[in-house]
Amino acid sequence: MKLILAEVVTIGDEILYGQITDTNTQWMSTELDKIGIKTVRKSSVGDQEDKILQILEEAGSRADIVLITGGLGPTKDDITKKTLCKYFGDELIMNEDALAFVTDFFNKRGRPLTEINRQQALIPSRCTYLPNKTGTAPGMWFEKKEGDPKGRIYVSMPGVPSEMKYLMTNEVIPRLKKYFDTPVIYHKMIRTIGIGESLLAEKIEHWEDSLPAHIKLAYLPSFGQVRLRLTGVGENEEILKQQVQAEVDKVLPLINSYVFGFDDEDLEVAIGKILKSKGHTVSAAESCTGGFVSHMFTKVPGSSAYFMGSVVSYDNSIKMNVLGVKPETLEAHGAVSEETVTQMAEGVRALMKTDYAIATSGVAGPDGGTPEKPVGTLWIACAMEGKTVARKIQMSNQRDTNINYGSVVALNLLRKMLIGDYES
Amino acid sequence: MKLILAEVVTIGDEILYGQITDTNTQWMSTELDKIGIKTVRKSSVGDQEDKILQILEEAGSRADIVLITGGLGPTKDDITKKTLCKYFGDELIMNEDALAFVTDFFNKRGRPLTEINRQQALIPSRCTYLPNKTGTAPGMWFEKKEGDPKGRIYVSMPGVPSEMKYLMTNEVIPRLKKYFDTPVIYHKMIRTIGIGESLLAEKIEHWEDSLPAHIKLAYLPSFGQVRLRLTGVGENEEILKQQVQAEVDKVLPLINSYVFGFDDEDLEVAIGKILKSKGHTVSAAESCTGGFVSHMFTKVPGSSAYFMGSVVSYDNSIKMNVLGVKPETLEAHGAVSEETVTQMAEGVRALMKTDYAIATSGVAGPDGGTPEKPVGTLWIACAMEGKTVARKIQMSNQRDTNINYGSVVALNLLRKMLIGDYES
Repeated sequence: MKLILAEVVTIGDEILYGQITDTNTQWMSTELDKIGIKTVRKSSVGDQEDKILQILEEAGSRADIVLITGGLGPTKDDITKKTLCKYFGDELIMNEDALAFVTDFFNKRGRPLTEINRQQALIPSRCTYLPNKTGTAPGMWFEKKEGDPKGRIYVSMPGVPSEMKYLMTNEVIPRLKKYFDTPVIYHKMIRTIGIGESLLAEKIEHWEDSLPAHIKLAYLPSFGQVRLRLTGVGENEEILKQQVQAEVDKVLPLINSYVFGFDDEDLEVAIGKILKSKGHTVSAAESCTGGFVSHMFTKVPGSSAYFMGSVVSYDNSIKMNVLGVKPETLEAHGAVSEETVTQMAEGVRALMKTDYAIATSGVAGPDGGTPEKPVGTLWIACAMEGKTVARKIQMSNQRDTNINYGSVVALNLLRKMLIGDYES
Repeated sequence: MKLILAEVVTIGDEILYGQITDTNTQWMSTELDKIGIKTVRKSSVGDQEDKILQILEEAGSRADIVLITGGLGPTKDDITKKTLCKYFGDELIMNEDALAFVTDFFNKRGRPLTEINRQQALIPSRCTYLPNKTGTAPGMWFEKKEGDPKGRIYVSMPGVPSEMKYLMTNEVIPRLKKYFDTPVIYHKMIRTIGIGESLLAEKIEHWEDSLPAHIKLAYLPSFGQVRLRLTGVGENEEILKQQVQAEVDKVLPLINSYVFGFDDEDLEVAIGKILKSKGHTVSAAESCTGGFVSHMFTKVPGSSAYFMGSVVSYDNSIKMNVLGVKPETLEAHGAVSEETVTQMAEGVRALMKTDYAIATSGVAGPDGGTPEKPVGTLWIACAMEGKTVARKIQMSNQRDTNINYGSVVALNLLRKMLIGDYES
């Protein structure tokens, strides 16, 4: 199998000088990887003709595909389109499809179509127009002439992430698959939580060693979670899927209690599914996580079906007056304690009349610790009918990490309660 | 003044294949920009010797400085150090300072110093050792031989963001300033909210046109906010500061009600400062923002001094039973209405006994809109003693943007109430 190589080029002063974060190239190389195309270099250059010409030539000399984003806006400082014309010895012509779309785009918004907007529909004569239904800058697909061993395909897309993603998904990836006759690649991601990478590797060592040659395993750790990615390469999609699934079925019993979902399913989405399927509801009482647990629930579309609400009880008066934590408990044990976090969970569950409730209380930092409760000490609890479970976790002194990680472990305790796995 | 050019190179398969987001290069080019060094290209390559050698040669042929991150871990797949040796025709020798540090690092943590860890202290003989107090991989500073017109400085740093930042701040930037005798550069950032870039530009046009030649203005828009960055270049730091400050003093009266802070001060930090200085407290009632307003408050260290807590009233039952929104109000006007959001703000203010309270209620999307209240319709309110102000905002159908942007505009309404600017 011939390896197909890609380079990703971003054009724009705002990325080069650090004014915006580039999230595009990560997403693009992940999508290329999924169809078996390997990214060999990523580059950023500014909005200058000589720099753009130079990188187009260089990238094309190394890779089969050059994906370019940015520099397609209507203002003078955006020169990608003109520079591509120069590079290919081409000229700009009005594309009727693009013009119809831009005209309609402005009509619908009740805004006049200015000359500068009209020029968005000018594209190089020899490229294929890729319709962008999410904005006014078109995508452009260039094929180099016969006989060129490298740099056969150049694609230019806008730098706005939603527009780039639309074009990649709907136009570029399908065309690349067809043009290069890429092999069938099938990915399956197993998502785990609550176990480190090395311990996980130990548990599945024998299984991993017995994987067939055309199925590879990758460990992708992030933030208390490890994703196991199985990648199969073959010729027949149905057979490949079955083969990968057979391996998944073999490994699951070995790591069952750590697996919360598959593929793109985030922890909060997986929990939402369980709650929905049971017709159960949840609420939260947050101290140190300060609203982040609630945010994790509510960023999921449709979460109003099971998430009733929460109380962020930052001040002790709120813990007592709204959640019903007893003053003598706070007096005797402090806010960061098993007793307090238990009463918080049970309090919000009663207040919001939910089936489940989770609670957090800890020292988020960077200051405020004591010898007995250093910065990073966190208590979490989950309450259900007749049972409340509390756990203590020791984190670091990084406030943002503590908020994020604390929220994730609290959600995982809820998940374990939901599936009846909370004694383990 | 001679322009000094830099290239930033990241090394590592995990960035190239999209497994992690590169936030380093943005930060690095911003820091270079602050001392007047212009980044002309950023590149990422994988952990392969030939690719690394190629980019080292290329980058050095274009720029005066090549900053390299990544590939310095102790495992076999990290080959940056060896490859730098090869590129410079050098050999690895044990650096005693580095070894003492690594030994101490493991001793302190009660972990044995393995041979592989010991090798972290091997560095090329001709480079200058840059002590990294935040990890076990050292920084390395290479100067090319006399007479080379380009690529005079190569610096290699670990890819872990906190380690790279430590080395850049404490070692690399001070050395670059000295080596290149960079001019004195002074930046002042004015942070605005609630006005678009073009309208802002109109308001300050005359002032901008009258700026002296050695003070430049840049507009940096992001998410409902525009930062105005004034950059002065000169020889005497004190005089330059005074000159920039004089321009700031001239422009402020023109845009006063939009300015919330300066330099690195985020909106939630600026609001916290006002609340603290007045000795006032705040609470929140969130529906569509689902905890994100609370998170913005509580991610600021020390926010417990003024943020008492909040209620995320996702379900209407919570709006009624916890916040005291009247059932007939919900019946007649719905949850997304001026009447409901007003009662939410006043309800949480009474419940949590705070001086101020903000509330949000909207259709976050992507679904759930009606012809009268399409997706993206948002009501926000801010209540204080004797006065509640409500505002309606129309956003898009992107759930995450709506949650973020809605939280920012709600906080800005609070800011305006705090400074008595809410009728404008």
